[in-house]
Amino acid sequence: MKHPQQTIGDIGERETIARIVAVAPSSRNGDDAAVLGQPAPNSRTVVTTDMLVEGRHFRQDWSTPEEIGKRAILQNFADIEAMGARPVAAVLGLSAPESTPIDTVEGIARGVETQVAFYNAELVGGDITSGDILTLSVTAIGSLGGSAAPLTLDRARPGQQLVAAGRIGYSAAGLALLSEYGREAVPEELMPLVHAFVSPSLLPGRGVIARATGATCMTDNSDGLVADLGTIAGRSRVTIDLDPVAIAPDELQTQAGELLGVDPWTWILGGGEDHTLLATTARAVPSGFRPIGRVLKASSHGVLLGGETPAVTSGWVSF
Amino acid sequence: MKHPQQTIGDIGERETIARIVAVAPSSRNGDDAAVLGQPAPNSRTVVTTDMLVEGRHFRQDWSTPEEIGKRAILQNFADIEAMGARPVAAVLGLSAPESTPIDTVEGIARGVETQVAFYNAELVGGDITSGDILTLSVTAIGSLGGSAAPLTLDRARPGQQLVAAGRIGYSAAGLALLSEYGREAVPEELMPLVHAFVSPSLLPGRGVIARATGATCMTDNSDGLVADLGTIAGRSRVTIDLDPVAIAPDELQTQAGELLGVDPWTWILGGGEDHTLLATTARAVPSGFRPIGRVLKASSHGVLLGGETPAVTSGWVSF
Repeated sequence: MKHPQQTIGDIGERETIARIVAVAPSSRNGDDAAVLGQPAPNSRTVVTTDMLVEGRHFRQDWSTPEEIGKRAILQNFADIEAMGARPVAAVLGLSAPESTPIDTVEGIARGVETQVAFYNAELVGGDITSGDILTLSVTAIGSLGGSAAPLTLDRARPGQQLVAAGRIGYSAAGLALLSEYGREAVPEELMPLVHAFVSPSLLPGRGVIARATGATCMTDNSDGLVADLGTIAGRSRVTIDLDPVAIAPDELQTQAGELLGVDPWTWILGGGEDHTLLATTARAVPSGFRPIGRVLKASSHGVLLGGETPAVTSGWVSF
Repeated sequence: MKHPQQTIGDIGERETIARIVAVAPSSRNGDDAAVLGQPAPNSRTVVTTDMLVEGRHFRQDWSTPEEIGKRAILQNFADIEAMGARPVAAVLGLSAPESTPIDTVEGIARGVETQVAFYNAELVGGDITSGDILTLSVTAIGSLGGSAAPLTLDRARPGQQLVAAGRIGYSAAGLALLSEYGREAVPEELMPLVHAFVSPSLLPGRGVIARATGATCMTDNSDGLVADLGTIAGRSRVTIDLDPVAIAPDELQTQAGELLGVDPWTWILGGGEDHTLLATTARAVPSGFRPIGRVLKASSHGVLLGGETPAVTSGWVSF
């Protein structure tokens, strides 16, 4: 027989906060606001925020609390990296029903702490309140060193290469597998796709490296490859031509596509949430990146695939 | 006949964001993350976050969307001020049902913009998603200039005066009136109490002034006077003795108390959310503050009222 789990309603707000802080301790936490360390000379502060709602952005039967916490941080830190900056701190807002097991909250905090520590950053504060749906709100703070421009969406230039650091279309394939099978029944060999959805990864520092080695424009693949590159194409007034060989489905994606009766290109072109960095550069391919296309002069199309209009263009929308 | 209102589900995510940005424009917004301006030399970044859930922290039959937005910013900026820092930027996470009228979202954005502009700060980014309950998550970023220590909770010292900038127990009285009468039926002359609840105010710069003129410890009255001062007493290992004359109910509070059959001292000692700055200083009372008590050596009591144990000690808890 399973013991009834202790809930956050049982132990109350103060004890719940104490448990979170025990999992993710910080000397900066616990006052009205957190004071960050002295910034590097000439650096600027970079800030981004993302909200994750249960049932919409994650499901507890698909993701562990740790994975939910890790992903909440990763998707914010990817936005910091995508400016060419270094994540230094995060705050976590958590709204949860009183019936939420304290284990769940501690698990989320552990995932958050694991991810911020992996980035050598720090969870410096937060807020917790009761609410009917489990909702996480993360704000990430980054440091943009030196006086060079940040890597904005409007600075892709014709003649540059498009380069990527990370998988493309893995997260969407994982989501499709979870939707069909649930977490327990996904074939073992396809689990890397599932892991890309429940806890996407991005090596710390790739964004800083890209900026230091001459990239001018960067984003992360969050809304879908064609959608995100379409935003760059529009803001930069260029056309982006994807190399169909470089981004072709790999063996796992092909296998998953056959199993589900889905064209894996759907995941590659339309799927988001890989949080893979996509940058443009006229210089050498930055370490950890690979070329996946070229930037052309503006045409009537924002994004092309091997010179032709891609069949899939839609991406993730919040509502 | 009232026209059916256009909802955010009708116009979609992109258009909703466009409407918010039109109300609160910022050149820093619209990329993966916002890059703040070059910081002042020697300054440090300060960060805080707060989540507001409909039904728990606000009600739409009590507050206008503008008031909800203004309050969300104010309670975060008060935490920045309470460190002795200056608010410079905010990000807004918004989770809302698809049936939410676009007018409501624009109203919230207008309130946010009004408040950040009043503080000479900027809304630099945000995130919007659908969710079953209207939820706001604000993160505020501040600048702590110079090398002096921030005004933390652990630096009250025996012999100091306790000083306050703003009303105490007004917000709680306003909440009590709203609970009894609803917004429309509160007697006109008591509306200042209601306004203190739906849109508390705090003059920008008071926190910086307190730090510049020798205060060592500061917080804002968010959880309740005795609760917040109790935190200071505990962290600083002191006792705080409130002056019963200085914080006595004023005419409005007395009138409201008689009307509702409530002892107004309940609101003064137990009510939070005034976001009044409470500071301790051994020097002259900072401009805009007034003395309301003294800091004594630690005793068995954290907070006293005229040398005696106050009758009301509890404050706001989130669950």
